[in-house]
Amino acid sequence: MSQARGYAVKSATSRFEPFSFPRREPGERDVQIEIAYCGICHSDIHQARNEWKNSTYPMVPGHEIVGRVSKVGSKVSKFKAGDIAGVGCMVDSCRRCPNCKQNLEQHCLLHASLTYNGTEQDGKTPTYGGYCSHIVVDEAFALKVSPKLPLERAAPLLCAGITTYSPLKRWKIGPGARVGVMGLGGLGHMAVKNAAAMGAEVTVLSRSKSKQADAKRLGAADFALTTEAATAKKLAGRLDLIVDTVSADHDVNGALGFLKTGGTLVLVGAPPSPLSLSAFSLIGGRKNLSGSVIGGIAETQEMLDFCADKGVLCDVEVTSIRDLERAYERTLKGDVRYRFVIDLKTLA
Amino acid sequence: MSQARGYAVKSATSRFEPFSFPRREPGERDVQIEIAYCGICHSDIHQARNEWKNSTYPMVPGHEIVGRVSKVGSKVSKFKAGDIAGVGCMVDSCRRCPNCKQNLEQHCLLHASLTYNGTEQDGKTPTYGGYCSHIVVDEAFALKVSPKLPLERAAPLLCAGITTYSPLKRWKIGPGARVGVMGLGGLGHMAVKNAAAMGAEVTVLSRSKSKQADAKRLGAADFALTTEAATAKKLAGRLDLIVDTVSADHDVNGALGFLKTGGTLVLVGAPPSPLSLSAFSLIGGRKNLSGSVIGGIAETQEMLDFCADKGVLCDVEVTSIRDLERAYERTLKGDVRYRFVIDLKTLA
Repeated sequence: MSQARGYAVKSATSRFEPFSFPRREPGERDVQIEIAYCGICHSDIHQARNEWKNSTYPMVPGHEIVGRVSKVGSKVSKFKAGDIAGVGCMVDSCRRCPNCKQNLEQHCLLHASLTYNGTEQDGKTPTYGGYCSHIVVDEAFALKVSPKLPLERAAPLLCAGITTYSPLKRWKIGPGARVGVMGLGGLGHMAVKNAAAMGAEVTVLSRSKSKQADAKRLGAADFALTTEAATAKKLAGRLDLIVDTVSADHDVNGALGFLKTGGTLVLVGAPPSPLSLSAFSLIGGRKNLSGSVIGGIAETQEMLDFCADKGVLCDVEVTSIRDLERAYERTLKGDVRYRFVIDLKTLA
Repeated sequence: MSQARGYAVKSATSRFEPFSFPRREPGERDVQIEIAYCGICHSDIHQARNEWKNSTYPMVPGHEIVGRVSKVGSKVSKFKAGDIAGVGCMVDSCRRCPNCKQNLEQHCLLHASLTYNGTEQDGKTPTYGGYCSHIVVDEAFALKVSPKLPLERAAPLLCAGITTYSPLKRWKIGPGARVGVMGLGGLGHMAVKNAAAMGAEVTVLSRSKSKQADAKRLGAADFALTTEAATAKKLAGRLDLIVDTVSADHDVNGALGFLKTGGTLVLVGAPPSPLSLSAFSLIGGRKNLSGSVIGGIAETQEMLDFCADKGVLCDVEVTSIRDLERAYERTLKGDVRYRFVIDLKTLA
């Protein structure tokens, strides 16, 4: 066993405080990664505060992890000490159900071991995330990260990157496609960059005029205020796919009107209240409302390679781990462009 | 001009009464069809009573039409006098928009001429449906109906048949697929028959135990009461596609739980109130909620040929046109197995 140093919350209402916990010695298929950076995902906040009613404590959040491999097990073939590696939202899965066999480990039918607030495959050992010094993970769930990427800007690819990349690939987005992105936050800004890098014409759909300049800078060809009546007319029947990243309650019926016949609006955020959906919004143009969550391991590797190739990186603000509470508050207010990333050197 | 004899309503609150109106002489691409039978679709009732707030009067409803060709224009190639022909929900469309060019005339971007309560392509001449003696239609929108089919049982294929056939084909249903059918009425019973004829394993999802025997008789392998808690466990993650034919307000979140990862629930009925949809119902298993409405002309012909080949026919109760009011009342109560069809001989 080694001792990891990190930050944890002890209950839904406590503040983060230093926390030490044991990590297993790397087994023959394991790699140990010294964590350089870990992104702060909105879902970290939901879980730290038990807003999904499934939290266990103490909790060390963090599933946007990059760092340097320090130890490898005897049968590890993908990594050697010194390599850059990443860990996303999962550290294991059953690996034998039909979904795992189709590289959809995020939909493992038996038990996906989430990177934190979950358990290992034994169903007992709690998992602890990336707000700490190091992590030990089976190489099958560790990702190769190009050493040419600035690590702090690569870390959020492990969740925000794959969450937006996966639906774009599933709906075969490429040159000629028109993609709408609803909401311009951590997920939304990655959706814009990924879709633009795939060659699509991107329209940012927002309620806030203040996002217009950034939308263009990030690669969007167009920007539309969903609060303006003229938008409905301008965008009617125009888009192939809308990636809806809004996790607050919002209307989707208007946005469905922006889709072409047969088009899809895919939810990647999870508003807390049920959506109100008119059946006519779907039937009229045989449209689809779909959901998507992260991606499988192979697709996550494909995304990392794509981002390295195209220079797609997250816009981040690096924070000290001692400022977690402030980073959480600012994330909740949308006051970050576009992702906080913890510099683990600040643990010292 | 010829004079058609039929039944019309003059307002949202009037009763049906005999109504004579002119039909054009067949143009060079037109066929004239002496109507033998016309089905009564639930949407006839919605429109006769202006429940969709878009009705024009006098209205002669009816878009499940079969009969015998009596006249053909000089350039008609598909039909000759004496042939059996059908007309569904459309009598024309722009024929040049991207959707029409892809055989999706039901989603014509300019102007689909609905069979009644619409206008011809001139945007002025009102269309009158099949509750009458004859109809004149461009051969491009007339369907060939196998003379070996009992016509009264073939008539509802023109709407109820294609409405359920189209989504089954779109989601590539065939042997090995598991299909759920929600609601066992005019649409639902055709969904069961079509899916079973395609080789799928069909489960009828109903709130009423009284439908169980019929479900099996129609070809379903299984029946599940959506009102029973055990159903959620039994069907969890089991189905590839659910065809939701329920046009009353109902819950879809429970049914989404019956779908496999990546599965689809397709709405073919249109509940009047917005659905309440939890984003988690879609995101969890990257599922889809979709809509579908009838089908294009080529697909409608394909469906008629499939039904003739497989012996798929509607279960009907033949009614006199003098009993329209009673048929409407019984349809609203679900008191018909499963479709009323008007025998136009009763016009005499």
